[in-house]
Amino acid sequence: MFQRILVANRGEIALRIIRACRDLGIEVACVYSEADKDAPYLKLADQAICIGPGPAVDSYLRVDRIIAAAEITNAQAIHPGYGFLSENSKFASICRDCKIEFIGPPPEAMDAVGNKEKGKQLAKKAKVPTVPGSDGLVTSDEEALKFAHQVGYPVLIKASAGGGGRGMRVARNDITLVSGLASARQEAESAFKDGSVLLEKYLDQPRHVEVQVLGDRYGNVIHLYERDCSMQRRHQKLVEESPAPNLPEKVRDNICDAAVRLARAAGYYSAGTCEFLVDKDNNFYFIEVNARVQVEHPVTELVTGVDLIREMIRVAAGEKLRYRQKDIVLRGAAIECRINAEDPANNFRPSAGTITKWQPPGGPGIRMDSHVVTGYRVPPNYDSMVAKLLVHQPTRDEAIAVMRRALREFTVEGIATTIPIHQQIMSTAEFINGTVDTTFIERRLMAGK
Amino acid sequence: MFQRILVANRGEIALRIIRACRDLGIEVACVYSEADKDAPYLKLADQAICIGPGPAVDSYLRVDRIIAAAEITNAQAIHPGYGFLSENSKFASICRDCKIEFIGPPPEAMDAVGNKEKGKQLAKKAKVPTVPGSDGLVTSDEEALKFAHQVGYPVLIKASAGGGGRGMRVARNDITLVSGLASARQEAESAFKDGSVLLEKYLDQPRHVEVQVLGDRYGNVIHLYERDCSMQRRHQKLVEESPAPNLPEKVRDNICDAAVRLARAAGYYSAGTCEFLVDKDNNFYFIEVNARVQVEHPVTELVTGVDLIREMIRVAAGEKLRYRQKDIVLRGAAIECRINAEDPANNFRPSAGTITKWQPPGGPGIRMDSHVVTGYRVPPNYDSMVAKLLVHQPTRDEAIAVMRRALREFTVEGIATTIPIHQQIMSTAEFINGTVDTTFIERRLMAGK
Repeated sequence: MFQRILVANRGEIALRIIRACRDLGIEVACVYSEADKDAPYLKLADQAICIGPGPAVDSYLRVDRIIAAAEITNAQAIHPGYGFLSENSKFASICRDCKIEFIGPPPEAMDAVGNKEKGKQLAKKAKVPTVPGSDGLVTSDEEALKFAHQVGYPVLIKASAGGGGRGMRVARNDITLVSGLASARQEAESAFKDGSVLLEKYLDQPRHVEVQVLGDRYGNVIHLYERDCSMQRRHQKLVEESPAPNLPEKVRDNICDAAVRLARAAGYYSAGTCEFLVDKDNNFYFIEVNARVQVEHPVTELVTGVDLIREMIRVAAGEKLRYRQKDIVLRGAAIECRINAEDPANNFRPSAGTITKWQPPGGPGIRMDSHVVTGYRVPPNYDSMVAKLLVHQPTRDEAIAVMRRALREFTVEGIATTIPIHQQIMSTAEFINGTVDTTFIERRLMAGK
Repeated sequence: MFQRILVANRGEIALRIIRACRDLGIEVACVYSEADKDAPYLKLADQAICIGPGPAVDSYLRVDRIIAAAEITNAQAIHPGYGFLSENSKFASICRDCKIEFIGPPPEAMDAVGNKEKGKQLAKKAKVPTVPGSDGLVTSDEEALKFAHQVGYPVLIKASAGGGGRGMRVARNDITLVSGLASARQEAESAFKDGSVLLEKYLDQPRHVEVQVLGDRYGNVIHLYERDCSMQRRHQKLVEESPAPNLPEKVRDNICDAAVRLARAAGYYSAGTCEFLVDKDNNFYFIEVNARVQVEHPVTELVTGVDLIREMIRVAAGEKLRYRQKDIVLRGAAIECRINAEDPANNFRPSAGTITKWQPPGGPGIRMDSHVVTGYRVPPNYDSMVAKLLVHQPTRDEAIAVMRRALREFTVEGIATTIPIHQQIMSTAEFINGTVDTTFIERRLMAGK
């Protein structure tokens, strides 16, 4: 096992990794930018190294400085957290060249799933369903109708040269397909001087379901079941939960198996996530792999009892997985609310500043992952998340009740937070019934204002 | 189910009950004394009623005022917490007379186990072992030797009129028994003008093991396994854990079964605890029943997944137990550290005052039950506990590691706390090995200073 690990991140995930190191009895060094110099979690590390000014490009994204920090602190391994360099396969390769263990997947696997197109190809090879698309450009109405009949309506017409929604149409029957093709071509022609179009199956109000996978260097890959992250605002997840509500057992099994097949095909090890869209008929379609630990990983930790960060460290140290698939049992229901320093009354404008009062909730069923304390100044440089508030209960209904209680207890002064929006969500019938899709927030909560 | 419950307590257990009510969707009123008027948890209640000045005898022990508070707030039930009126069977009877549900055992069961002597008689009836004693006074050496040979050495010689250790001797063989009898008689004679003595089996460095029971009004009684609370200082528990380390499976089963038999014999319902001493050969002896919820109940909640306060409320509302014995499964290991406002460097002197900084630990595996926030003034009137810090992990070793991490994170300024003593305990070989008995703190930690 490693003697010392370097944490190449900041905020709650830096603290999360520091905690995992402590729990394993491993020493820990942590990098920080000048903007984070007063971050309280730095005191919990054995050593803290400043790697540059506030902007991430000058600090948390500086490969040279992070490698230097690992060498100065005698760290044998680097945990990159999420964001920043976590999915940078070059960084992982450089770590390898420097004989520093990168706590994450191998660079080859990162490359194999590194962009959506590559991921999609790999998925096809692993017999994992992807959103069906036309085989290249569609040049005639007949060809378009044939594709539409094959995959079923609705279908999406996309300009080949497109962007920003221009040259894009949703067709729900033969008539709107033919008319849509003509108008999309026209719009694309005038916008991009290129009228060529593609077709793709259109998923109406899909759910976002992702599967946590975990593998070791010896080809063992397991899944830790799924998370539902449909409650999003502009593709930013607000609420995550496990298990996904109203997902038939058979679909759950199939989607989890698909994720394991995909990870195996990529030669993946460490923790990772396969993201899927699920349509109303519970067909699922692979979107992409997140080749790192995710913000919402504690949801899975609560329902499975597996500490993902510790397992990542163990795998990086060359240990075999300590779990077989049958050891992984889902118990109860867990929900996470991401509490951001944003003002929901003001179009979610970031709310930087000093927190004058910070009283997190407690008691049974609560987990708080937060680097924030009273007196903490939220730096304007980074993402606005200040806490992940999690609950774990025997049933989903109880989890919602406990989350409602916890949100009510949570007192923050000095900055605006998204606590009120979460209180609203936890009392919304669609969330309570588990029928939320990825367009829910924009369609409903925003419309209600 | 009740519409509204009155909490007749203060501090962390008041907040614990408020949380349980919220989680069940029940409205909650809370009484408070003038000394507690600024307690932050009062804001989480729907209503708060002042019942008198700081001294408990003028407020939290005033039956009339608490009944009046229940009537004023239209509460249909009262949760007494622990301490104060919680084990007062008269109070429970008065509640019944006033048609207010007392959330706890029936007064008849409280009376049946109300003092150690009654409890011991009941235990004998239920075939639950108690510490063997001579049948009344011992008048001859022959009688004493016979008793000692019957129960085995060591035996305790106690002055019948005794107190304060006078006339008390431990005999470990025939010779010291005979000489001890003589000297004890002499000492008792000169101290109390009464030289008569009793004999009892003496338990050398016993462990304190207690069993959580839960019953309903319909005769269903189950146990929720045991807690080891051997880490005590002057009979005050410092650390509690479940399961008890190094307790053979068969002993665990027998002690748990004994507790259920005893609870059944008492006609007990609601939550309660049967306390036992366990000697080095794993013989166990009943001491007493705690006819209420205990401070350390969250330890059991963590390893069983059962919310004891919610179950107490359900049982009081007339619901049947939702668990059968086979539903109760011990998962992992949980440890609780009681954090008191006491100065371990100053012979545990109470440290009242204002808390200028309160930064509780967080992250995976942590539960914090505390009514304290930054700026809270610890009133001098009540017991000094400011937090219960709990961890839950798959194994005991991991639980100890996580507790160590959590204690390190825990920052309190403005008052002295027992955090340092817990840090010491968590690094002590005897605790790590699970070989602590009730005399450990006095024998070892104190001696080392």
